[in-house]
Amino acid sequence: MTRAALIEQIKLKRSFLCVGLDTDLTKIPEYFLQKEDPIFEFNKAIIDATKDFCVAYKPNTAFYECHGPKGWESLKKTLEYIPKDIFTIADAKRGDIGNTSRYYADTFFNHLSADAVTVAPYMGEDSVTPFFEFKNKWVILLALTSNKGALDFQFTIDANNEELYKKVLQKSQDWGTEENLMYVVGATRAEGIGEVRKIAPKHFFLVPGVGAQGGSLEDVAKHGWNDDCGLLVNSSRGIIYASQGKDFSEKAQKAARKLQQKMANILDAKGF
Amino acid sequence: MTRAALIEQIKLKRSFLCVGLDTDLTKIPEYFLQKEDPIFEFNKAIIDATKDFCVAYKPNTAFYECHGPKGWESLKKTLEYIPKDIFTIADAKRGDIGNTSRYYADTFFNHLSADAVTVAPYMGEDSVTPFFEFKNKWVILLALTSNKGALDFQFTIDANNEELYKKVLQKSQDWGTEENLMYVVGATRAEGIGEVRKIAPKHFFLVPGVGAQGGSLEDVAKHGWNDDCGLLVNSSRGIIYASQGKDFSEKAQKAARKLQQKMANILDAKGF
Repeated sequence: MTRAALIEQIKLKRSFLCVGLDTDLTKIPEYFLQKEDPIFEFNKAIIDATKDFCVAYKPNTAFYECHGPKGWESLKKTLEYIPKDIFTIADAKRGDIGNTSRYYADTFFNHLSADAVTVAPYMGEDSVTPFFEFKNKWVILLALTSNKGALDFQFTIDANNEELYKKVLQKSQDWGTEENLMYVVGATRAEGIGEVRKIAPKHFFLVPGVGAQGGSLEDVAKHGWNDDCGLLVNSSRGIIYASQGKDFSEKAQKAARKLQQKMANILDAKGF
Repeated sequence: MTRAALIEQIKLKRSFLCVGLDTDLTKIPEYFLQKEDPIFEFNKAIIDATKDFCVAYKPNTAFYECHGPKGWESLKKTLEYIPKDIFTIADAKRGDIGNTSRYYADTFFNHLSADAVTVAPYMGEDSVTPFFEFKNKWVILLALTSNKGALDFQFTIDANNEELYKKVLQKSQDWGTEENLMYVVGATRAEGIGEVRKIAPKHFFLVPGVGAQGGSLEDVAKHGWNDDCGLLVNSSRGIIYASQGKDFSEKAQKAARKLQQKMANILDAKGF
């Protein structure tokens, strides 16, 4: 999907919501477990219930891999089921030497036909650039993550008095453009989002950490907004496990709609 | 596998060789492509030919994932086929927030029954520690990688005049011990191996980059040796693609034996 097409969807749906499909067999309604492919069936119900309120879906590969080949089938079927005008992100946090990253790109872009894949920056340029060889496909690079461990290395101050995550933002802008590169910026670090926006004014940010992890949508919009919205705000558990009973899909829809309405208010206020 | 058992194997086999199973359908002898599971059949032949000369196997998951569910079957079958006294490493370079890393640990340690998994450190403590909850299983943390991109971030000098990779080594020693934590240290940075050894005197290092990438076994042993050997030196392409003809397994055996004999000389010289 192109950047222009994504922006068009945001305008059309009045939403910059990404729904995280972190589907866990221990948390979905029990009656799914009798089905042939419980994960896909649950995702299908969630997608049906939420697709009018979001512009992206983000399955995290860990929740699929742990079921082996069957899990990969569920992931593939899920990505295929998502309507084509919705942006799809394989949250895989891959990254390896160039020769090998090319195979990961092939996996997520060709085999699974995702629009984007999350990538870890530790191994540097040649671990990231192979992903850019695919037209209209995206790298979403970890910059400032939402977890506690982000403090261990991402804030390392270098000799120029600059944090590592800023160096990642700066260097990586030589590798990709705002047409094929986004950044992961955690909502739990609202002040950080503003710093990231200064360094990467044009890029989209994928923002996890709103809801269960404690980040605020208003703060994210305040610090992260750019002229093209520039935000995909993710919610996983707050939507897909809004209820674990038979009403799970209605409750998921309600939670997604609530976030979408808040987003619509923000978009309206920005005159977008 | 325990540390003691691994050391015992090194002594017994007079080898600290790890064979990288980066099995690529475009590089294996063509007649394998007619088989039901070409990747597994090729790996089986390579394992049969090299198992007496190595103490570890390391399939890189990228080469399996790109074939979807079928690739995961090949990976599982390969790991199951490897004799139980040989250490197995899923070279997956995973790492995610704690809740999610636990699923990756389950995937590689339980579902695929690997002894170890490679992990990227960018997301910090809670992305690494869930892997330590599994008894006699190992994290192999990226410290100083063998690729060109290693120079982008791993050598970032912090305010204490210390490189990022050293910070990774120091902090991570609070999370794991030499009984469940190893480090990836590229052979292409021989001077770096000595630096890493100073900071992590007891830990094993997984050393890629000997052979095709240009690192020297002698330099690695010179700078990286500790009282328990402390080294697993990986060779992938140099062994598994020593020939792409019908004699591939003989040539692979010859290449593995050649490295093993060099290693035996090193072990003898060290009186190990």
